[in-house]
Amino acid sequence: MAVKVIFHVDENHKWELALKNAGNLLKAVGKNEARAEILANAEAVGFYRKKDHNKETAELMDDLHEMGIIFKACNNALGNFKISKDDIFPFVKIVPVGVLDLALKQDEGYAYIKP
Amino acid sequence: MAVKVIFHVDENHKWELALKNAGNLLKAVGKNEARAEILANAEAVGFYRKKDHNKETAELMDDLHEMGIIFKACNNALGNFKISKDDIFPFVKIVPVGVLDLALKQDEGYAYIKP
Amino acid sequence: MAVKVIFHVDENHKWELALKNAGNLLKAVGKNEARAEILANAEAVGFYRKKDHNKETAELMDDLHEMGIIFKACNNALGNFKISKDDIFPFVKIVPVGVLDLALKQDEGYAYIKP
Repeated sequence: MAVKVIFHVDENHKWELALKNAGNLLKAVGKNEARAEILANAEAVGFYRKKDHNKETAELMDDLHEMGIIFKACNNALGNFKISKDDIFPFVKIVPVGVLDLALKQDEGYAYIKP
Repeated sequence: MAVKVIFHVDENHKWELALKNAGNLLKAVGKNEARAEILANAEAVGFYRKKDHNKETAELMDDLHEMGIIFKACNNALGNFKISKDDIFPFVKIVPVGVLDLALKQDEGYAYIKP
Repeated sequence: MAVKVIFHVDENHKWELALKNAGNLLKAVGKNEARAEILANAEAVGFYRKKDHNKETAELMDDLHEMGIIFKACNNALGNFKISKDDIFPFVKIVPVGVLDLALKQDEGYAYIKP
């Protein structure tokens, strides 16, 4: 049975660690044996803005997305920080309410990890 | 089935986000479809002191309580910070050991969220 | 049925609170009724270095270990911080990937708490 994890990020300075954590998990169990998501809310949705990233970070996120990691953004938070859908990486999935998503995933058997 | 969440706060600077998170959850699913609790331990129990709040914050907490959010304080932490039952908002429920409460609620199927 | 908790520490300044939390949990339910683990990854594995501690902290950790708390370190993190097995307290259990361990324990019914 696949290992299922949802990582929660709500502070920008935690993104680096969260990306490393998620990558290590996938490397350890293999992409077919893991369901890994990263849910960003509060200020951390700002990290999804394409223009704020250098090429290296953009490629890392793209690689992780290719490896199967699902990136999610809280729509409430996007609104609060005046970030539009066009500003963020195209692979980011927008959910209406971040904390509701965190609750629903745990209810589906996902482990919760807050880096 | 109701969405069940326990929010954990142990740092005072996280209270604002925790209150916003809990409010957004209730608005999203409706008060009858949510069981939402906020458990404060360590320094975060200090936020429950009535006298430290302006009218606006006190009303916000009262509103959230009215919407069904259960506020809890760890009794160990209240003791460590020399805060008495009379100092805190009357709607705060005191539990003997905060981390035990967090464990028991997760065992009852509550999702854990640390803002 | 025993109360099962895994505490997650990835910042050094959170260790003091984590040790207090774990100790309070064990005192509350008794060592035979609790399974408590502390999983350290990222910079927090550095706290396990024997030489960095005064006698008091070393004794506190030893006492908690005697009370039944299982201390774990992420091997990835030990490698990143160039810490060898010989540098850390002998009672620390090394796991290959910290976040995988956090996921597996939650899958076994352990509650997750991030102090």
